[in-house]
Amino acid sequence: MIQASICTIGDEILIGQIVDTNSSYISRALNDIGIRVRRMLSFGDDRMTIISSLSEELRRNDIVIVTGGLGPTKDDITKSALAKLSGSKGYKESGEQLEIITRILRSRGLDMLDINRQQALVPDRCEVIPNRLGTAPVMVFRFGKDDFGHECVLYSLPGVPFEATGAMQDVIGDISRHFGTGEIFHKTIMTYGIAESALAKMIEPWEDALPEGMHLAYLPDPLKGVRLRLSIYGGTHEDDEAAVERQMKRLRPILGDAIYSEQDDTLQETVGRLLRNSGKTMSAAESCTGGLISSLVTSVPGASEYYLGSVTSYAVDIKKNILGVPEEIIGRYGVVSSECAASMAENARRITGSDYAVSTTGVAGPGGGTDENPVGTVWIGASSAFRTLTCRKTFRNDRIRNIERFAASALDFLRKLIQSEQNHC
Amino acid sequence: MIQASICTIGDEILIGQIVDTNSSYISRALNDIGIRVRRMLSFGDDRMTIISSLSEELRRNDIVIVTGGLGPTKDDITKSALAKLSGSKGYKESGEQLEIITRILRSRGLDMLDINRQQALVPDRCEVIPNRLGTAPVMVFRFGKDDFGHECVLYSLPGVPFEATGAMQDVIGDISRHFGTGEIFHKTIMTYGIAESALAKMIEPWEDALPEGMHLAYLPDPLKGVRLRLSIYGGTHEDDEAAVERQMKRLRPILGDAIYSEQDDTLQETVGRLLRNSGKTMSAAESCTGGLISSLVTSVPGASEYYLGSVTSYAVDIKKNILGVPEEIIGRYGVVSSECAASMAENARRITGSDYAVSTTGVAGPGGGTDENPVGTVWIGASSAFRTLTCRKTFRNDRIRNIERFAASALDFLRKLIQSEQNHC
Repeated sequence: MIQASICTIGDEILIGQIVDTNSSYISRALNDIGIRVRRMLSFGDDRMTIISSLSEELRRNDIVIVTGGLGPTKDDITKSALAKLSGSKGYKESGEQLEIITRILRSRGLDMLDINRQQALVPDRCEVIPNRLGTAPVMVFRFGKDDFGHECVLYSLPGVPFEATGAMQDVIGDISRHFGTGEIFHKTIMTYGIAESALAKMIEPWEDALPEGMHLAYLPDPLKGVRLRLSIYGGTHEDDEAAVERQMKRLRPILGDAIYSEQDDTLQETVGRLLRNSGKTMSAAESCTGGLISSLVTSVPGASEYYLGSVTSYAVDIKKNILGVPEEIIGRYGVVSSECAASMAENARRITGSDYAVSTTGVAGPGGGTDENPVGTVWIGASSAFRTLTCRKTFRNDRIRNIERFAASALDFLRKLIQSEQNHC
Repeated sequence: MIQASICTIGDEILIGQIVDTNSSYISRALNDIGIRVRRMLSFGDDRMTIISSLSEELRRNDIVIVTGGLGPTKDDITKSALAKLSGSKGYKESGEQLEIITRILRSRGLDMLDINRQQALVPDRCEVIPNRLGTAPVMVFRFGKDDFGHECVLYSLPGVPFEATGAMQDVIGDISRHFGTGEIFHKTIMTYGIAESALAKMIEPWEDALPEGMHLAYLPDPLKGVRLRLSIYGGTHEDDEAAVERQMKRLRPILGDAIYSEQDDTLQETVGRLLRNSGKTMSAAESCTGGLISSLVTSVPGASEYYLGSVTSYAVDIKKNILGVPEEIIGRYGVVSSECAASMAENARRITGSDYAVSTTGVAGPGGGTDENPVGTVWIGASSAFRTLTCRKTFRNDRIRNIERFAASALDFLRKLIQSEQNHC
């Protein structure tokens, strides 16, 4: 089995200022093509440490993936350490990366400085994979038996997470070509509204009966719910797909409408697809979610086709004056109530002219809780031309996590309303 | 200087199923008492790997902190590896931990099983620090020169984050007693609006003149700008603080109002503090940022004191009908224009009654760009009782990243407007 090590360079990780999320992403990507990650390592921006740690990892592994330590400023000395490690005689310029750097700087209205230009310089013994999302290129160093006792490759990626994530696609392509990694077939099932432990209990008999070689993983996420990933190695693509579909036929009736997608996508993508397919539009009226629902919906490319807009009504006066929630409802039931959530959703539809609307009103914390509505309580509303539904949920997390759960629950509530009306048409 | 290594054991980290947050917490705690973390390492639940990796770290470091691999299930084999590593002859029972286990099980209505009782068993060559938050105790192994060439200590902590965090307090106490540790001093300077490379150029002469032992790090973040961190080791807290302040006196005039905070906080926290201190309120009118500004502002606890609400006007009709942007402005200048941004901000103030408002209108992409306003273009507006300002920015990232840059730039633009008016009062 091909073995890999993931190394993260940067003092900011060692002093705990940032959490390393790159390693986890990279290891998932490697696992997906059947490569086993043996170690993950973080060490500081120190030349000797970089050289000795990377040498050791190259001796032990087929693939070493390095992130970080490639910024333009002087605390980043990874590149000179890699030049030394690879026995490069000097540096060469990557014309392709220089073009990207020029374009990025121009788009920001900046002049090319020497330190920008230097980012296109790489040790002469490496191959370059251009980084289209940033200024530092991916460097690929291939080593033979004379170097570390066996053939091995080192990939050096930028540390900025979205650049590292973007670069991994090209790196995976390079690895597949050079190592001829096998095929693996994944099926992702997105569920919302059932906690991981309860879900595991529900599907235990199904899981226990999975055929040899088929593996199930639970991947919970506050904004996506629990993602189930069914993996199978070794067969042809068609055989694997058919084997997975046989299991899916047994799983669907168990989970019912808790499954919101059988692709690896989000609640907001699912809502967007449902709306686009039916030519309908939506709006939102947000209180405790403070704009997060809108932000999630508009993070999807093309959202302007079905998303009209929203009102974030944090202050009571905005609920009354802009949304038009009647004074009487607020006075009689309070803002954290089924009636207020319903009125917010209905009024969002009315003032925006959308087909559907979703609303939230609750207490994210840390302050503001009452006996009746403790911190973590939310009322969610969803409204269509035919009806308005509400539900109450409670969570017990910190502010940020509560807001995330509120927003995801609201999107899921809206998703179910849209689905139920489409099924009946 | 005392050096440490943090090791995390568990296959779930290597396959990317969970992100390791313990290491970051532990490294901050060690840094705070002046201990330098040289490496962080993650490896799997494999006995030989555990023994060889830990031996290597003990040879190189004074302190090795291990988390994970102590659960009751059989894939956790850390304890037997530690018994072997320490040359223990057998296991002993920790009476104190057994009491805690009994109490925890009883509170959950569970009976004591053999696998629960085994958690109180530890290798006979270790000292126990009881874990009051869970069933697996902290094990402390002290080694002499004959073992790994120098005196060193290994602390084995449970992997569950809140148990590891809780246990670190006792571990820090033990380390302070045995090593008589010193202090480290950090100062964080938050800047926005200057790219990392341009910033490095601007402060190069200042950076080159930093005294021996003082270290500068650049930490760019799309939502926070570039964070500068100045660190100094070795002196007393007062001396270090004074030395850093001497450098800050020279840095402030160079960066001017690009510095938005001298604490480790965000643009939205800074805007919130400025508003709270002056008793003012804000609102927002968002188009291309789709609710992200509101979501960021309301992520701060207590935001309801100064944040009234917002309108997300994705559709043109909502700009007109809810915000009240005049038809004429849209017809004459288009929605992506200085005039529209100004009108959105002014109307947000008007309809919400806030003191300040911020607005955005632009093209996040991937579609929708024109020659005049390519993808990545945003007009930002900021309005107060005294004036309305606008600015145009362009970025060239993917949709999500463009939206983040738009929102952060808008918050920074608002921050500068509020600051300028407070300075003049």
